[in-house]
Amino acid sequence: MKEGKILKELLQDFAEIKKHSLVDGELWRASYTKEDQKVKEYLTAMMRTKGFIVSQDALMNLLGQIEGRESDETILVGSHLDTVKNGGEFDGLYGFLAGIYAIENLVKVYGQPKRSLAVVGFMEEEGSRFTSGYIGSRAIVGELKDSDFAEVDRSGTSLREAVKLAGGKPSECISAKRLDIKAFFEVHIEQGPVLEQSGKQIGLVESINGLRILQITVRGRQDHAGTTPMGLRKDALLHACKIISNMDRLTENTISPSTATVGELLLKPGSSNVVPDFVQFTVDIRSSDSEAIKYIVCGISKIAETIKHAGLEVKIEVIADEPPIQLDDDLLKANEMICKEEGYSYFVMNSGAGHDAQVIAPHIPSALLFVPCVGGRSHTPEEAMTEVSMMDGIQILSRVLYDQAW
Amino acid sequence: MKEGKILKELLQDFAEIKKHSLVDGELWRASYTKEDQKVKEYLTAMMRTKGFIVSQDALMNLLGQIEGRESDETILVGSHLDTVKNGGEFDGLYGFLAGIYAIENLVKVYGQPKRSLAVVGFMEEEGSRFTSGYIGSRAIVGELKDSDFAEVDRSGTSLREAVKLAGGKPSECISAKRLDIKAFFEVHIEQGPVLEQSGKQIGLVESINGLRILQITVRGRQDHAGTTPMGLRKDALLHACKIISNMDRLTENTISPSTATVGELLLKPGSSNVVPDFVQFTVDIRSSDSEAIKYIVCGISKIAETIKHAGLEVKIEVIADEPPIQLDDDLLKANEMICKEEGYSYFVMNSGAGHDAQVIAPHIPSALLFVPCVGGRSHTPEEAMTEVSMMDGIQILSRVLYDQAW
Repeated sequence: MKEGKILKELLQDFAEIKKHSLVDGELWRASYTKEDQKVKEYLTAMMRTKGFIVSQDALMNLLGQIEGRESDETILVGSHLDTVKNGGEFDGLYGFLAGIYAIENLVKVYGQPKRSLAVVGFMEEEGSRFTSGYIGSRAIVGELKDSDFAEVDRSGTSLREAVKLAGGKPSECISAKRLDIKAFFEVHIEQGPVLEQSGKQIGLVESINGLRILQITVRGRQDHAGTTPMGLRKDALLHACKIISNMDRLTENTISPSTATVGELLLKPGSSNVVPDFVQFTVDIRSSDSEAIKYIVCGISKIAETIKHAGLEVKIEVIADEPPIQLDDDLLKANEMICKEEGYSYFVMNSGAGHDAQVIAPHIPSALLFVPCVGGRSHTPEEAMTEVSMMDGIQILSRVLYDQAW
Repeated sequence: MKEGKILKELLQDFAEIKKHSLVDGELWRASYTKEDQKVKEYLTAMMRTKGFIVSQDALMNLLGQIEGRESDETILVGSHLDTVKNGGEFDGLYGFLAGIYAIENLVKVYGQPKRSLAVVGFMEEEGSRFTSGYIGSRAIVGELKDSDFAEVDRSGTSLREAVKLAGGKPSECISAKRLDIKAFFEVHIEQGPVLEQSGKQIGLVESINGLRILQITVRGRQDHAGTTPMGLRKDALLHACKIISNMDRLTENTISPSTATVGELLLKPGSSNVVPDFVQFTVDIRSSDSEAIKYIVCGISKIAETIKHAGLEVKIEVIADEPPIQLDDDLLKANEMICKEEGYSYFVMNSGAGHDAQVIAPHIPSALLFVPCVGGRSHTPEEAMTEVSMMDGIQILSRVLYDQAW
């Protein structure tokens, strides 16, 4: 493998793609947007020069195919193309590019594979535009229902409209379902500090944490901030903060490690001298242990009861609920063996973050491989990878794909 | 006074002006906007038919003048024309229209006055666009400094640009200062429950509560919500909520009644699965007692210290600081006498809300008169007045202005 050449091209790709992904100076490649489209155009041209057959399915997942000699079976590799708002440049994209470079190099060295190979760039994994997320991977395994297209983004645009406007075909969603995939491999930066602190090169993920997202709506009464005595108010923000400020206490008390994050909050009417009557926020709760998630939800409900006693309305809706997911044990063992044979240090671990692999895994044998990111930082512009980690991921993936397809 | 005719016209004015003030279906007449302009055009035409000489000063305060026979002295009456976002239709506007109808009727009955009379519609009292507020009244008393024009609204437009775009002349700000005003009268809905609960018709305000607005900025670190253990986070929202959720406790502990309101909050980056690194919010603190305000600010600072100990940055800026203001005692006594003579029940009280009168009072003898609003509700679309209260205010104001100008 000509590592220097690959690394140079790869760094150039990251730099070019970053340029296409800026919104008001911040990196935000939301699905079905102008930025998404520009990056897909770049990737399409790039894949074609490397010999891939490029297409987009009904959901606008980007696919690059190398036909196999002998079989109708396909090995799928890839990750998501979208990012969170003001996110990092390696999250998702690294896994897509790793697939491209690994396959390009394998074909150069070993010629046409036996099994077909496809690299996929999934749409809307992050949920940074449509909160439920995993749109692309759900389509691939036939788990996207017609009713899912009614979900709207913050500007009121439905997923159906967004996909259509971008050139996709929501009504032909079922055509995106792939029956030919025999295994799925996702390479991703860890997005946490565990792997870096362990000093290992590769993370082999055995399970992905469960996630429950609550949307909590607090309705009080709008009043003048100067003339309404505190005791007569129904201040939606003050009460919402009694939930949010307790996230650290609630997670401290669970037996298994857990997290609870409020990252999104809508406040109305939003004037400094008006008592707010409406607050809506999300709570992102994660743990490898379903009981820990239940405990935190229960704690939130208890605080909500005290808010209701103060005369406000509180509505708690579950907008996402993903149980902990086990990845394929045989693939995990094979990957352990590969790491040993190739001389890579590895660490068998859980994933705190959600990944497309968790959507694919219940349907198709799947493996998720981590490489470290600097300081474990992700979903921020400071996200970074070392060049060594970039190449480690591509090297291991190359060997994995060789074993699967040649 | 032909009460039926006045009431009919007045109700029609409120209805027409409401139509011109809707933004996405919500009433929001922010200063120097399209809505502001449309309403001023309506009021200009209306005042001209009633015999007023209409003008706008350098700050775009709307003025309707009736020239006096004998004197260069002017009696000023009015209130603000702007509203908060999703506000009510009587806040401010009622005081302006009460002046118009009172003066029109007085001129009809008693002819040209001795002293000149002017009705003023002040710009940007609320601070719903430019947080510091009282822009128009500060100009009238020469308290608007050139540096004040640098303040920006949420879209980044400076006050200077906004005034210019609307046709005003920020550079000639000093020309708006009036040296001919001998007294100022503001009639306003109470915006609180005190007057209605007292069962009285008219509130005679002796002092206006002090107000301090803090802008608090909490800076933490942006991290992935799934992979960053709680103990390693610097979550700006979670910590900001430890301040906000304590507003009830802090105000409960003051000896004089006080209020503290967080009505505005900016959160970044604003994704459900990203730990927020930036929260900025305002705290609106009011009391008739300066010591109570100090106590609350001190309590907030103590919580801020614990947040700093957790490794986050907290900046507390005072963006408005208005001491409690006494209104003119002679005018108050005269107005008490008028209420007695005219047979109106009255209540001498404090104002919990801020008013243009507090800006004028340190320079020109000023009186502030309240009429009740239904349920004390204001700064909300449910704000309402009874027709009886509407006419009570105009009747009393007529007698006040007669005594001053005829």
